[in-house]
Amino acid sequence: MSTSSLVPERHVAVVGGGLVGILSVLYFAKRGWRVSLFELREDLRIQENKRNISHKSINLALSVRGLSALKNTTLGLDEKVLESVIPMKGRMIHAGEGKLKSQPYGVFGECIYSVEREMLLELLLNTAATFTNVKMHFQHQLKRCNFDIGKLEFENKETGKQVEYLADLIIGADGAFSTVRTQLMRAVRMDYSQEYISHAYCELTIPPKINDKGDDDFAMDPNHLHIWPMRSFMMIALPNRNKSFTCTLFMPFENFNAIKTEDDLMEFFKKYFPDSIPLIGEERLKEEYFRNPKGSLVSIKCKPYHYRDRVIIIGDAAHSMVPFYGQGMNCGFQDVEVLNGIFEEYNISAVRSDDKLTFALEEYTRRRHPDVTSICDLAMYNYIEMRSSVVDPWYLLRRRVEGTLYRLFPRYVIPLYTMVSFSTMRYSEAMQRWKRQGFWLTMMGMSLLPIGTVAFIWIGYHQFKRVYPHYINFNLYYNRIM
Amino acid sequence: MSTSSLVPERHVAVVGGGLVGILSVLYFAKRGWRVSLFELREDLRIQENKRNISHKSINLALSVRGLSALKNTTLGLDEKVLESVIPMKGRMIHAGEGKLKSQPYGVFGECIYSVEREMLLELLLNTAATFTNVKMHFQHQLKRCNFDIGKLEFENKETGKQVEYLADLIIGADGAFSTVRTQLMRAVRMDYSQEYISHAYCELTIPPKINDKGDDDFAMDPNHLHIWPMRSFMMIALPNRNKSFTCTLFMPFENFNAIKTEDDLMEFFKKYFPDSIPLIGEERLKEEYFRNPKGSLVSIKCKPYHYRDRVIIIGDAAHSMVPFYGQGMNCGFQDVEVLNGIFEEYNISAVRSDDKLTFALEEYTRRRHPDVTSICDLAMYNYIEMRSSVVDPWYLLRRRVEGTLYRLFPRYVIPLYTMVSFSTMRYSEAMQRWKRQGFWLTMMGMSLLPIGTVAFIWIGYHQFKRVYPHYINFNLYYNRIM
Repeated sequence: MSTSSLVPERHVAVVGGGLVGILSVLYFAKRGWRVSLFELREDLRIQENKRNISHKSINLALSVRGLSALKNTTLGLDEKVLESVIPMKGRMIHAGEGKLKSQPYGVFGECIYSVEREMLLELLLNTAATFTNVKMHFQHQLKRCNFDIGKLEFENKETGKQVEYLADLIIGADGAFSTVRTQLMRAVRMDYSQEYISHAYCELTIPPKINDKGDDDFAMDPNHLHIWPMRSFMMIALPNRNKSFTCTLFMPFENFNAIKTEDDLMEFFKKYFPDSIPLIGEERLKEEYFRNPKGSLVSIKCKPYHYRDRVIIIGDAAHSMVPFYGQGMNCGFQDVEVLNGIFEEYNISAVRSDDKLTFALEEYTRRRHPDVTSICDLAMYNYIEMRSSVVDPWYLLRRRVEGTLYRLFPRYVIPLYTMVSFSTMRYSEAMQRWKRQGFWLTMMGMSLLPIGTVAFIWIGYHQFKRVYPHYINFNLYYNRIM
Repeated sequence: MSTSSLVPERHVAVVGGGLVGILSVLYFAKRGWRVSLFELREDLRIQENKRNISHKSINLALSVRGLSALKNTTLGLDEKVLESVIPMKGRMIHAGEGKLKSQPYGVFGECIYSVEREMLLELLLNTAATFTNVKMHFQHQLKRCNFDIGKLEFENKETGKQVEYLADLIIGADGAFSTVRTQLMRAVRMDYSQEYISHAYCELTIPPKINDKGDDDFAMDPNHLHIWPMRSFMMIALPNRNKSFTCTLFMPFENFNAIKTEDDLMEFFKKYFPDSIPLIGEERLKEEYFRNPKGSLVSIKCKPYHYRDRVIIIGDAAHSMVPFYGQGMNCGFQDVEVLNGIFEEYNISAVRSDDKLTFALEEYTRRRHPDVTSICDLAMYNYIEMRSSVVDPWYLLRRRVEGTLYRLFPRYVIPLYTMVSFSTMRYSEAMQRWKRQGFWLTMMGMSLLPIGTVAFIWIGYHQFKRVYPHYINFNLYYNRIM
């Protein structure tokens, strides 16, 4: 139409320049929106800002959902990322006394990937910078919003001045302690819950070892996620590109507090993680353990995620989960992909019009909430699996049976880990299938019990008969005698 | 000791001058603490401020817990309050077609009391004003706290200036959307949940009627809490001292939204609450329904309630419940009484010393949390009871059986309503006993079933024999013939 050039393009303000925020910038930039990104911290790409950026963990586990969302930008991000990751094909269980057991994640050799947060963030930022319709504002702290007129008030931390922006749509991707969510809670009746687990975490490092050629090399198998499962607590380690491993020790706060001196620490490590001491190094262990912060872990759920056609929260702002399924980032990336899919379905355009943006945001809340709730719960469950079940024979039996059935009937039985990490199946469906499978496996096990018992007795009888044939005919003899 | 006069007395800052806040002022004043009260609104006692104070409901249900906490101030508050209340001895069910059914609350004629919020608040404020160690600051809005040094920053709304105070102990009694709680969430790992129910409320008035002598009189029985139970929604009415009733209509937001015109409203009322139309008056109904706000109802739970020896939250700031058990204020008052009891146990004095204040606050969280959680859940449950169960024969049967058993074995069976409203038993214990009683009553019912069946058949047989004796001997005749 002739007037179309006069219709101003829609403006989306993305609050929060973490991984999920910048991915949403890319999706909206591709859709032709005018995009403004607001981030509290400094620009990571300016060299001296690195390492001051955050205390968040260094590496993350990237799996199929995350990769799918990267791929669907059609910017080749998935391929670029895969050049700089380390595949982890399974768990390596440190079972004590130096014993190692590999438990593959996938039945067909599927992998998850250890990826460095900083590398990924820089890639996304650099990609965003290539779009002329994207403007990035760093050191901007959100102070308050007026959602009805779409106004955002920031403090520019560099100049100390208050600045205001107007936006048609506001994306809150500002993390677990989201300001956008707090503002949203004033506008809608939001159901909200936050629950801290009693466990804290502390990061440690296994440095590279020097190999025969005098080069840096990994001190353990780099293609596994290493776990030291201790039932009520655990340590894990993920490989980094510089051949080091980042270890994370998860245990109750009171256990951390009980370690007061270097002697306490060494006694604790000698008792529970003796094979890790030479890998980390005693001096480094003592230094890092007492220096590094003990972080807490929170699970946050809320509903709804939107307000009219104006605001939507995604990523950790909408669902903060404990890190035990490695799905925090993957779920956040999928949020963006799902939102984009719904925008496609509802035909939401970049030019202002009377389209169905309100309905699209409503649909996002409706569709995404059961999935997000499921993965939050599964993440909580997986902590028990990682620190305890992995050494439990029943768990290993179910794993094996499910794996075999998956090979035979891939349409009917899929192991939970495969559904969550190696598919883009809705989390809520994965949860339901997993429960259903558990029920049928139990039923199967129980129906096998009498057959097994009969078989056991039958084999036992024939074995017995073979060895002591005269005993079997005892009654016969006895009857004859009588 | 000679130095005792040099030891400064402890200073407690109570944030929030609602009913619970001021009751805590009185308890601390009695304990000899220096008390400062900070309230956002103006002083209610200044005549022109009345009625501008808040949009909260006009009348409340006071029961034994609230009275106990008032009494234990030893200031004679309970007696003063009881002079100005209206006893409600039961529910009056408006069952349709003008039918009324009274359901007594207590087995022995116990009552709850309809009390006016404003009267109660004024009484508490006036009592607080008689203490020389109490200072009250109105129009003070809390901005932020530094709990570690006990600093509170307020904006004085009258002067517009920022003011700071220091306190040894901070009591957050600032309601469901508490600022103290928000600040506390930054200091401790707080588990927190808020859940909105899908129902809203709207207040209406039944004015006094003119009696034969030409005086104002109640339009319905004043000694009942009136209920119009409609299964999925309801209206209730509580009496006021001026002979009016305050009605509250509770129903889903979408039902409120569906009533768009005066005709819609009248059609709705004629269908569901026909007997209330002449009582409210058609004109008043139309005016009030469309003028009065439709309030939302939220249930808030959190834990812990304290931080070290510095802060504690009580009342709605710690637990906001839906209003269906009439326990919001009663529970808040009991909070103060329980806190005072623990201060007694731990021997917490008004002079600074190395006493066990931290342990006392810890103990408060530990002891009070299961009780508060129970009453929040019971309040949610009671909505179903009020709007639906009160006309359900099975509910009425259980009520009757429990009432009878309570008369016979008062130590073993106590109806839930009696435990909650007519005792100071811990809410968590009431909840447990109620569940246990339900289990045993069901078991008893089930064990009576075969006995009942046998009795039924036996009676039936003898009745039959009496009426048709020849039929019974049919077999006999038949055998003889053969």
